[in-house]
Amino acid sequence: MVSPILSMNQATIKHADLRQTLNTLTQAGYGSVGLWREPVEAVGVPAAVRMVANSGLRVSSMCRGGFFTMPEGPERRASIDDNRKLIEETAAFGCKTLVLVVGGLPQGSKDLAGARTRVSEALAELEDDALAAGVTLAIEPLHPMYCTDRACVSTLAEALDIAAPFDPKAVGVTVDTFHIFWDPDVLRSITRAGREGRIAAYQVCDYRTPLEADPLLSRHYPGEGVIDFKPLTEAVAATGWRGDIECEIFNQAVWDTPFDEVARRVADTFDTYVAPYWPAC
Amino acid sequence: MVSPILSMNQATIKHADLRQTLNTLTQAGYGSVGLWREPVEAVGVPAAVRMVANSGLRVSSMCRGGFFTMPEGPERRASIDDNRKLIEETAAFGCKTLVLVVGGLPQGSKDLAGARTRVSEALAELEDDALAAGVTLAIEPLHPMYCTDRACVSTLAEALDIAAPFDPKAVGVTVDTFHIFWDPDVLRSITRAGREGRIAAYQVCDYRTPLEADPLLSRHYPGEGVIDFKPLTEAVAATGWRGDIECEIFNQAVWDTPFDEVARRVADTFDTYVAPYWPAC
Repeated sequence: MVSPILSMNQATIKHADLRQTLNTLTQAGYGSVGLWREPVEAVGVPAAVRMVANSGLRVSSMCRGGFFTMPEGPERRASIDDNRKLIEETAAFGCKTLVLVVGGLPQGSKDLAGARTRVSEALAELEDDALAAGVTLAIEPLHPMYCTDRACVSTLAEALDIAAPFDPKAVGVTVDTFHIFWDPDVLRSITRAGREGRIAAYQVCDYRTPLEADPLLSRHYPGEGVIDFKPLTEAVAATGWRGDIECEIFNQAVWDTPFDEVARRVADTFDTYVAPYWPAC
Repeated sequence: MVSPILSMNQATIKHADLRQTLNTLTQAGYGSVGLWREPVEAVGVPAAVRMVANSGLRVSSMCRGGFFTMPEGPERRASIDDNRKLIEETAAFGCKTLVLVVGGLPQGSKDLAGARTRVSEALAELEDDALAAGVTLAIEPLHPMYCTDRACVSTLAEALDIAAPFDPKAVGVTVDTFHIFWDPDVLRSITRAGREGRIAAYQVCDYRTPLEADPLLSRHYPGEGVIDFKPLTEAVAATGWRGDIECEIFNQAVWDTPFDEVARRVADTFDTYVAPYWPAC
């Protein structure tokens, strides 16, 4: 029995195409899925929308927009346009959350403050599109080890500071246990995120050392690492936010596991390590 | 010509014994060295003190104490005793700074808050010893990627919060560019550290991705990564702190380089990337 609030992020079974993903999740008894643009675009958005509608699954989030820290120029224009397209794609699924990985330092730059400013500027350009589409751009603070090459936003507090000038319907945050559990301010920041109406996604997976050879693939099933999901999950629940909780794992061993086994394992570990701390549905 | 404020941390030439370290640095024209306990204890503290005195080098810091996040029991007692011994060793060199790597999660624990509390408790036990010896215990916030296995204190603000109840002569902080450059609050925290009289060491080295296979060995010569040393160094200088600045690099390629070449390279990269932002001596 899969928890009714559990969504599996599609990247957890990276090698599944969209049809395989939907079949895996519906057969396992899931009610929700987190989509990635690549497998969606591989079948085309209209076809993907029909497939998802037929599956009966809710779409908890679309991954991922962002990567707009470069200075003004054709590359930046292409990124802004691409994010506009992604907002439309997200809305096409009736999904309200587009997860943003904002980008790191542009090639040759050492200016983190400048990169962060350009995140704010990009959001200012995209706010109206997001509002019009009914989609929230969910800034995801990434673990500081990815600060310079993937996301110059490293803490939930910083994500909230960047989001602050914008309509909470347009700009929110993604709360991902892996990226922020280490932060001594994490519980206060989750509470603040709730108070400010910014929580747009809650993603769970575990962290442990030694890191995998590729640190990007160091995410693990809940319970296989050192994260205590109780305080984090209770803090999110206490804000009143009630979306589907996504399990998102990038890990070569998980990707090498049969899809149905992963779906089962995600549901089981979620039941043990996360669901007990979420209010009964 | 080596900058008169530059100290080379001994770990930068890890395979040098104490005599080789002192010879390398004096021949290269350094005025200061950061010591590690292992090569010191290999010759015995009294002999080491004589050797350092004869070298004419100042001792910018002793590395490293800490590792006291375990719960009460014989292991914790041994750690506290060991830190007391290290305070004495530090004082024996006329050195005022013992760098602390506080420790991560005890085996099997997921309780970061508990680990942090035990850091505070350990400092409370050691405060009087530090004051008596004239040694400052310099809490080093480590990059969050080491939070669970090496140091549960990840930001300068958190280190300052932990230090706050104690006499600034007894408990301070180590400002290390590698560990904290990513922090959006880093400049404010450096200013605060100065205001509160807590800066006990300033260490520099660079950061870049991809990380080395062993993330602990991912430290680089200034200028070889993405850290902008200007704002960090100017912020430290603006506090009025005027200690020797240590370059500390853990990196297999550096360790495989002849000692004199490393000493030269450290001095050259310091001159280019750090010294210009420090007030003229």
